[in-house]
Amino acid sequence: MAASAEQAPAAAAASEAPSTLIIDGKATAATIRAELKERADALMAKVGKAPGLAVILVGARPDSATYVRMKRKACEEVGIADFGVNLPVEASEDEIVAAVRAANEDERVHGILVQLPLPEHVNEMRVLSEISPEKDVDGLHPANVGDLALRGRNPRFVACTPRGCIELLHRNGIEISGKSAVVLGRSNIVGIPAALLLLQENATVTVCHSRTKDIEARIRDADILVAAIGKAHFVQGSWIKPGAVVIDVGINSVDDATKKRGYRLVGDVDYAAAKPVASAITPVPGGVGPMTIAMLLQNTVEAGERALTA
Amino acid sequence: MAASAEQAPAAAAASEAPSTLIIDGKATAATIRAELKERADALMAKVGKAPGLAVILVGARPDSATYVRMKRKACEEVGIADFGVNLPVEASEDEIVAAVRAANEDERVHGILVQLPLPEHVNEMRVLSEISPEKDVDGLHPANVGDLALRGRNPRFVACTPRGCIELLHRNGIEISGKSAVVLGRSNIVGIPAALLLLQENATVTVCHSRTKDIEARIRDADILVAAIGKAHFVQGSWIKPGAVVIDVGINSVDDATKKRGYRLVGDVDYAAAKPVASAITPVPGGVGPMTIAMLLQNTVEAGERALTA
Repeated sequence: MAASAEQAPAAAAASEAPSTLIIDGKATAATIRAELKERADALMAKVGKAPGLAVILVGARPDSATYVRMKRKACEEVGIADFGVNLPVEASEDEIVAAVRAANEDERVHGILVQLPLPEHVNEMRVLSEISPEKDVDGLHPANVGDLALRGRNPRFVACTPRGCIELLHRNGIEISGKSAVVLGRSNIVGIPAALLLLQENATVTVCHSRTKDIEARIRDADILVAAIGKAHFVQGSWIKPGAVVIDVGINSVDDATKKRGYRLVGDVDYAAAKPVASAITPVPGGVGPMTIAMLLQNTVEAGERALTA
Repeated sequence: MAASAEQAPAAAAASEAPSTLIIDGKATAATIRAELKERADALMAKVGKAPGLAVILVGARPDSATYVRMKRKACEEVGIADFGVNLPVEASEDEIVAAVRAANEDERVHGILVQLPLPEHVNEMRVLSEISPEKDVDGLHPANVGDLALRGRNPRFVACTPRGCIELLHRNGIEISGKSAVVLGRSNIVGIPAALLLLQENATVTVCHSRTKDIEARIRDADILVAAIGKAHFVQGSWIKPGAVVIDVGINSVDDATKKRGYRLVGDVDYAAAKPVASAITPVPGGVGPMTIAMLLQNTVEAGERALTA
């Protein structure tokens, strides 16, 4: 953690615009994980029980298996009990639903996460709807999204990646209220909940997508830009409003012969070109990415606290 | 209905900009109500049952009583059975919840509407959450709002006023996809669901509110403006983009000594000044207003069709 925290100022000092804040998601996530470990320890000391997470993995896609392994390792470090379930790729929709229902019933489990994508023969929407809204740590259940959309209601859970974006803004002292926020993309897991969160924080919010005309002009208007469209380097540096805050959710691989593995990961924003223009920017990797798991852990610890100290 | 339909072209012809379409909500609502009567009749012919609506009124506020009377009369005309409940103003929250639950259980009831506002001693959110999402004809239940927000899900019900706004656009041949839509206001009953609907229709959507800076510039950018902030004549004519479509949801009373009752109703937009600039505009009254009840009836007939022909 200390090492990561030190990287940020060093990187900033080397850039053309020394005043640009490089938002260090890795360091922030490490701080949050340390805080969560304290909360999990305090819960254990108080009630003798740990927050519990059930990650349901169907099949053995290498990428999904990697994500699940990372999540389980992170749980262990924080002190979250792991009730993971691995089902074979041939598992029927009913078998997956049965696993979800068993986790709904299990008092030791406070959070349930179904790793996506599910195999093609499975109706994802049906499976996700089966997760109890009380244990929906991914924040994708319609009841929780509805509570996020409506004023005066508090969703039990907010989707991890957009929650991570807002947390990065808060922890870096970036004001949201009254700002012009532009969200690129309207996916269920990032764009839509990010827009609803920014609205809740009193930003003036515009949602852009594939049908948006003159998207460049929209982006140029953003005090805060959240890019989540999954197109490598889509946003050019010249499109950024001087002084804007750039939150880059994209993780795209582009060919790179200089790398041993033949590719590198880049965001939706042309980082090198945007950095000198922005007042703050998240790198890829090491920006929003590490926050997603941190927020999953946070949602789980909060669910455990609610269930065990109610 | 015929008379109303004839009023619209006459009004347009007399205006300074003869090409401005005056969107006649009264006529459109009458058309919809006639269509719904046919659907209710067809349902009766097919299954021998009518769609049923339970309007729950607590207390005797004159405005609420008037709205409820209008809704009940409209139901009768369309052929919707009325299972209305009137509770005294002293009714406890538990008594109101009990009335909602009885309507949830009643197979003859396909739609439930709790007339707002409820008396101050009652937690509105709790009461509204008790309405079964299957019977939530007001479209305000978080589960239905969540389904509206998420792509790939179809909400059983969409809030009546915003649904009415979109219906006015559709029935007047106004294209939404790719347009810049600006929603003024972020209320649960209009602004938020209107924004989500416009996004679903592929508009680029901006939500403005009391914290928005330079709201005039935002409005000037709108191809489609939905004004729902409840401030009389807030939007000036000079703020309208030439050729924009203006949907005015506001219903505000302003003093008017020339009127017998001493006031008149006006929208959030300065209609006289905006009309020559806009390509289409809703008047107040007679624009969005009549559509709200028409959409309540439509939500109820659809709920009846789903329940009785499933």
